[in-house]
Amino acid sequence: MAGVEIERKWLISSVGSLPVEVAAAPAAQIEQGYLTIGTDGSETRIRRKAGSCTLTVKSGVGLVRNEAEVGLSAEQFEVLWPATEHARVQKHRRAVPGEGGVTIEVDVYSGELEGLVVAEVEFDDPWGAESFVAPYWFGPEVTADDAYKNRSLALHGRPS
Amino acid sequence: MAGVEIERKWLISSVGSLPVEVAAAPAAQIEQGYLTIGTDGSETRIRRKAGSCTLTVKSGVGLVRNEAEVGLSAEQFEVLWPATEHARVQKHRRAVPGEGGVTIEVDVYSGELEGLVVAEVEFDDPWGAESFVAPYWFGPEVTADDAYKNRSLALHGRPS
Repeated sequence: MAGVEIERKWLISSVGSLPVEVAAAPAAQIEQGYLTIGTDGSETRIRRKAGSCTLTVKSGVGLVRNEAEVGLSAEQFEVLWPATEHARVQKHRRAVPGEGGVTIEVDVYSGELEGLVVAEVEFDDPWGAESFVAPYWFGPEVTADDAYKNRSLALHGRPS
Repeated sequence: MAGVEIERKWLISSVGSLPVEVAAAPAAQIEQGYLTIGTDGSETRIRRKAGSCTLTVKSGVGLVRNEAEVGLSAEQFEVLWPATEHARVQKHRRAVPGEGGVTIEVDVYSGELEGLVVAEVEFDDPWGAESFVAPYWFGPEVTADDAYKNRSLALHGRPS
């Protein structure tokens, strides 16, 4: 898979503020670690989600980023995982349908980032991203806030 | 494969200054591209050498660096290769035995870096690295010169 990623991100105040149908959705465990984090906003990360492993390269900054992704075998993942030791996040992801046919992904972090809850929505084009109306249970938008990028959270923890 | 890499590097003035037995050794074509180059000396790169593909993560700086490497399928390589577009090197590598049981790898660059010839020797421990005596056909050592790292060559070309 390769392509352009358009994504917006919001904070959620706590797990308790999720609507019942979101809290009840099945949650997939995600372990994610960064192999290399570049100066220019680029990153190479690996992820294990519900037993399935991927390697993703992102480049560019802001709303629109280039992305290339390949599947990894469990064995490839195990060899690379130790190289992410100092830059990891753990979270549980719930995916629920949102308005306009989008998917809302709600990430509840654990470990060092316990207490952080974030919603992400990916869009097919910039028009969809701009016209999206956030549901009532979303908190402030942090799309443009570098401190809430997973790479920053992995390296520096939760912003205070 | 994972471990610590201890490597020294020297310039060679030209292909013409290689001893006959080195020039005659079989040469493997290497295409190498960087997925992400980090601020801290870390890098994630992919390489195709004589049809065999690998992904390597290096971290740390100087003589001793941590390295993790996995094999990639040709398909995985093809998906990731476009993400290296702005940071690539092409070279032909010859491997010949050196004193003390080491292997000398001679890289003759092509493409943008045509004319550059470099010898690299990898050591099992710092003592071996320190006691190694460079053969007469080696030019100046550039182990500590960042401009001759492959990542720098890939990004900025040959130092002038």
